Amino acid sequence: MCPGSFDPVTNGHVDIIERASGLADRVFVAVMVNQNKQGLFTAEQRIDLLSASLKHVDNVTIETFSGLLVDYCQTNGARAIVKGLRAVGDFDYELQMAQMNHRLTGVDTLFVATNPLYSFLSSSLIKEVVAFGGDINGLVPAPVLGPLVDALTGHS
Amino acid sequence: MCPGSFDPVTNGHVDIIERASGLADRVFVAVMVNQNKQGLFTAEQRIDLLSASLKHVDNVTIETFSGLLVDYCQTNGARAIVKGLRAVGDFDYELQMAQMNHRLTGVDTLFVATNPLYSFLSSSLIKEVVAFGGDINGLVPAPVLGPLVDALTGHS
Amino acid sequence: MCPGSFDPVTNGHVDIIERASGLADRVFVAVMVNQNKQGLFTAEQRIDLLSASLKHVDNVTIETFSGLLVDYCQTNGARAIVKGLRAVGDFDYELQMAQMNHRLTGVDTLFVATNPLYSFLSSSLIKEVVAFGGDINGLVPAPVLGPLVDALTGHS
Amino acid sequence: MCPGSFDPVTNGHVDIIERASGLADRVFVAVMVNQNKQGLFTAEQRIDLLSASLKHVDNVTIETFSGLLVDYCQTNGARAIVKGLRAVGDFDYELQMAQMNHRLTGVDTLFVATNPLYSFLSSSLIKEVVAFGGDINGLVPAPVLGPLVDALTGHS
Amino acid sequence: MCPGSFDPVTNGHVDIIERASGLADRVFVAVMVNQNKQGLFTAEQRIDLLSASLKHVDNVTIETFSGLLVDYCQTNGARAIVKGLRAVGDFDYELQMAQMNHRLTGVDTLFVATNPLYSFLSSSLIKEVVAFGGDINGLVPAPVLGPLVDALTGHS
Amino acid sequence: MCPGSFDPVTNGHVDIIERASGLADRVFVAVMVNQNKQGLFTAEQRIDLLSASLKHVDNVTIETFSGLLVDYCQTNGARAIVKGLRAVGDFDYELQMAQMNHRLTGVDTLFVATNPLYSFLSSSLIKEVVAFGGDINGLVPAPVLGPLVDALTGHS
Repeated sequence: MCPGSFDPVTNGHVDIIERASGLADRVFVAVMVNQNKQGLFTAEQRIDLLSASLKHVDNVTIETFSGLLVDYCQTNGARAIVKGLRAVGDFDYELQMAQMNHRLTGVDTLFVATNPLYSFLSSSLIKEVVAFGGDINGLVPAPVLGPLVDALTGHS
Repeated sequence: MCPGSFDPVTNGHVDIIERASGLADRVFVAVMVNQNKQGLFTAEQRIDLLSASLKHVDNVTIETFSGLLVDYCQTNGARAIVKGLRAVGDFDYELQMAQMNHRLTGVDTLFVATNPLYSFLSSSLIKEVVAFGGDINGLVPAPVLGPLVDALTGHS
Repeated sequence: MCPGSFDPVTNGHVDIIERASGLADRVFVAVMVNQNKQGLFTAEQRIDLLSASLKHVDNVTIETFSGLLVDYCQTNGARAIVKGLRAVGDFDYELQMAQMNHRLTGVDTLFVATNPLYSFLSSSLIKEVVAFGGDINGLVPAPVLGPLVDALTGHS
Repeated sequence: MCPGSFDPVTNGHVDIIERASGLADRVFVAVMVNQNKQGLFTAEQRIDLLSASLKHVDNVTIETFSGLLVDYCQTNGARAIVKGLRAVGDFDYELQMAQMNHRLTGVDTLFVATNPLYSFLSSSLIKEVVAFGGDINGLVPAPVLGPLVDALTGHS
Repeated sequence: MCPGSFDPVTNGHVDIIERASGLADRVFVAVMVNQNKQGLFTAEQRIDLLSASLKHVDNVTIETFSGLLVDYCQTNGARAIVKGLRAVGDFDYELQMAQMNHRLTGVDTLFVATNPLYSFLSSSLIKEVVAFGGDINGLVPAPVLGPLVDALTGHS
Repeated sequence: MCPGSFDPVTNGHVDIIERASGLADRVFVAVMVNQNKQGLFTAEQRIDLLSASLKHVDNVTIETFSGLLVDYCQTNGARAIVKGLRAVGDFDYELQMAQMNHRLTGVDTLFVATNPLYSFLSSSLIKEVVAFGGDINGLVPAPVLGPLVDALTGHS
């Protein structure tokens, strides 16, 4: 189970999902839908961009979910949550979530060290750079480039 | 002086207040009221939940306050601020506040290591879990359970 | 290039700019203008307060900018971004920004250790303290004291 | 693959191995042998204590190894290294090792959040406490208690 | 109870002990004696330097101890251990020790934020600077200056 | 001034020195000699490996030094110390050193964010990998490869 906002998916996300795919029989990519926070892309658009970016990965299912992640894991029979760890700043919050999730249903969270090449990437930083005309070639999957520039600057 | 939002009080808070109560003659639990941010519970409700959760602790006074914490300390003759430290992520901000507070009036901040059992708790995480129907038995004091579920899901 | 919101400038900022000024031929102080977030002072007021606070520093140019910092660096021929590092909490985000900026245009970010005396200062903490009547003498430059108290409490 | 010195195994180790055992078909517990550093227990003793402590876990193989962990993984066909993460202090070093190991052979490291109950445990702290007569009941597996006290104080 | 190696005492230590002295009726300064590690000063010399540096603090008792700190606390009826926290790097280890000590005997550890002025001080850094002829005036108590320079360079 | 042990120089070091070389008129690479700790390579060998690895950088002087770094800076008229920051774990110690060095002579330390590609490198990890026959191609400069393998395994 690889949860995230994926607004939009970056090459850092793709790297983590590829690794999870190599370790598990089946990987669920769960697009978290937050009713109170509007994103740049709709849930459907995020799923489309994920699908286009993960064509080369066989054993992946991409779905939206809302509610408790651990409930969603139980519904799908997922045995572990997989998350990328970029930096120490992520760590405290993620550890807290992992320990709460383990307490709620016993599901474990497995943290994978992000590829150093993508350690400085986040969806929000990507959006900030694109909004001001910066070049993000190589930081997001090819299918994301056009829609992202289009959504933020009005022309790709 | 144990300050906090306590929206609502968790077992982590109770643990810190119990320890402070064992070390000082008198403990003030100060419910910070933030005019600009509406909480889940009103200040009065938070005080009621704190009172019900701290019945077993003798030397505790529970009050609201607004303004500078150090002024409130001086008004009450409190000699130290006591805070729980859960994780490194708390540390930087708390250290900054402690050094500012010490500079303003000389009052010291004493940090107590949170009980590992409660190290992953925060009021906001608790609310998120309850909102989606997760079980928080053992994470908040018994008197908080009903009102919390009621406030977030409409039925306890 | 010393970027920041400077809303308002603190003695911590002045310390970093003074050090940058001793190391480089020319220092640009770049006041970041965020269209979506209104500050306490307008960009013009921030520049005035910076000018008044940096009278003793010869080789400084103070300007506003919006857009990508690295583009602004290239326009001005600035070879490096200089930032103060107060605490570990700053570190992750700043490292991420520095690596992104380096990737975008090759410009380097140089981090300077904040003077321990000012390590607990931030513009937002200063504003919070002043709003509640706390004394910040010695924490902001003299020209900032009056306008800051005036803006936050209505009387200096 | 769960590597470690296990000198001796603690309840924190057992918790991580149990979780790994629930997620993988087969778990290798690899006792690292360091020629230059003599431990309290010999490699054989550590394996005996691990075996006695992991009787209830079916799919575990316990072996010693020296050399590069990634080579040992390849020899055994292990697809991932599993490590417990207790605190931020562990994080930097472990992230560095994980990224190096991934680069050397492509093997991934999965970090599991330590049970908060055991977050303050380490083999060296345990030994220090026992050496001075402190009570570690509940912190190490039952089969470790006697030999540990015996080795450090001369009588169990 | 303020434990430490105090080899030698610095102005950072004095600051913490002064604060503890203002909060508690009686403060024990416990000089930890490590049989396996020879320090620069003997336990007796450290006590003499502490005594000379803490003449202005009334309610302080200075003693050596070996063994478990929590046992020493119980012997003296000390209700809490007080430690200075300089930086995040200290935090993980100290949190681990505090949680272990609390489990062993229920004694609490209170962390006090170090005065920013002394946040970069440690006994070992002080010794390194003095050994190479650096000036540490204002970083250690006056009575320490002469003996320290003498011990490290052969002439004060 | 780029100080370090450089035992041996890695591609991470070369990256930092190249950046310093682009920002300053003249860069001193200072090989710290520690009398009490024998390294893998002698000071002369380290200088030879640095020279061979930095042939493409014009404005670099490579020397050994012992004693206080700040004294060495003053002797050479160096206005700043430049260091790479890989991770949060480096940060606390380096901040402490920077603040001490600034206090001793006013010299500033400039931290440069390590290239993410090399963020997991350290001389000691490199040596550990080579000792067990791991492949470090691309992690150290070409002139270092042969001597390093030779020194650690007896054959290159």
